[in-house]
Amino acid sequence: MKDKEKLIWIENSRRILNKCRIFDLYQIEKTSPNGEVGSFYLIDAPDWITVIPLLTDEKGIDCFLMVEQYRHGSDEITYEFPAGMIDEGELPVKAAKRELLEETGYTSGEVIEIGAVSSNPAFMNNISYTFIARDLSFIGEQNLDKDEFIHFHLIPCTEVIEKMGTGSYSNGIMIIALASYQRWKEINAISSG
Amino acid sequence: MKDKEKLIWIENSRRILNKCRIFDLYQIEKTSPNGEVGSFYLIDAPDWITVIPLLTDEKGIDCFLMVEQYRHGSDEITYEFPAGMIDEGELPVKAAKRELLEETGYTSGEVIEIGAVSSNPAFMNNISYTFIARDLSFIGEQNLDKDEFIHFHLIPCTEVIEKMGTGSYSNGIMIIALASYQRWKEINAISSG
Repeated sequence: MKDKEKLIWIENSRRILNKCRIFDLYQIEKTSPNGEVGSFYLIDAPDWITVIPLLTDEKGIDCFLMVEQYRHGSDEITYEFPAGMIDEGELPVKAAKRELLEETGYTSGEVIEIGAVSSNPAFMNNISYTFIARDLSFIGEQNLDKDEFIHFHLIPCTEVIEKMGTGSYSNGIMIIALASYQRWKEINAISSG
Repeated sequence: MKDKEKLIWIENSRRILNKCRIFDLYQIEKTSPNGEVGSFYLIDAPDWITVIPLLTDEKGIDCFLMVEQYRHGSDEITYEFPAGMIDEGELPVKAAKRELLEETGYTSGEVIEIGAVSSNPAFMNNISYTFIARDLSFIGEQNLDKDEFIHFHLIPCTEVIEKMGTGSYSNGIMIIALASYQRWKEINAISSG
């Protein structure tokens, strides 16, 4: 057996425990590298997108467009980049444009994928994509689901970067998105420098 | 109503749907800011810790001690910092020391908390802590659960930082931990500079 094969488990069977609208919960039986049988839980979720909208405020300061909303898991109000689930059959980039428009009323002339990682490979199977959105135009009202209540704000990039990981900026998925953005900026600075 | 109050939902009742060893699944009924009633799913999980072990290899290169393991959610092998769940009643720092020892056989003379964020406030209620561990000593064998198979490696910090967010380094929780580390390094450089 090669070294890597000593780590891999093989799935024997799975059964669904619950369908929960935003994910399905499965129990999966697997066989370990040394033949032992174990049972594991899987959150089978649609892929997610986060979109980082870049624009300049009336003073010429570089800003992110951030949404302020109540989060049901943490029971807290957070500041986040617009984000959401990808609909079935929808391209990630389409989902990014759709969520941006729904949550803020802005459209973007340039949406670029800058990251794709596993939300949590321990017990989830979905990918979390990050996009940047530039060339923004405000075309009108938010178009929210009836259970969504979202405010949005232009906040200087420096302020968001400084606060990320603290207080109301503690959504892990947003930290992942910002890390993709900072990586993308660095690579971009090198290639254009 | 103040602006923030226009976002907050109030819990009416909750019922447990599944107990899943690493988390419990609840369905929660809540009332919206404008009096509408909605139903939401909550993953009630123990808090998690990630520990970033810092040491120097025999050539004097700054390295992270990384674990290589199979992940049941993504069905992939990943490179990660040692990490795990906090046991009931256990202090986060104790959990960090325990997981480091169990997964790698190393103890640490200095474990410092450098971050605490929400894993995913949309549908989870737990905190993900990040620690650094210095002054490391190898004291012996790993002490793994019978369903854990983990290899560990000393990998240069520069390599981990470069690869984080790509390929086998795509665990979102590790990206969060590395962001905490980079923030901590920056603050530390400023305060000692």
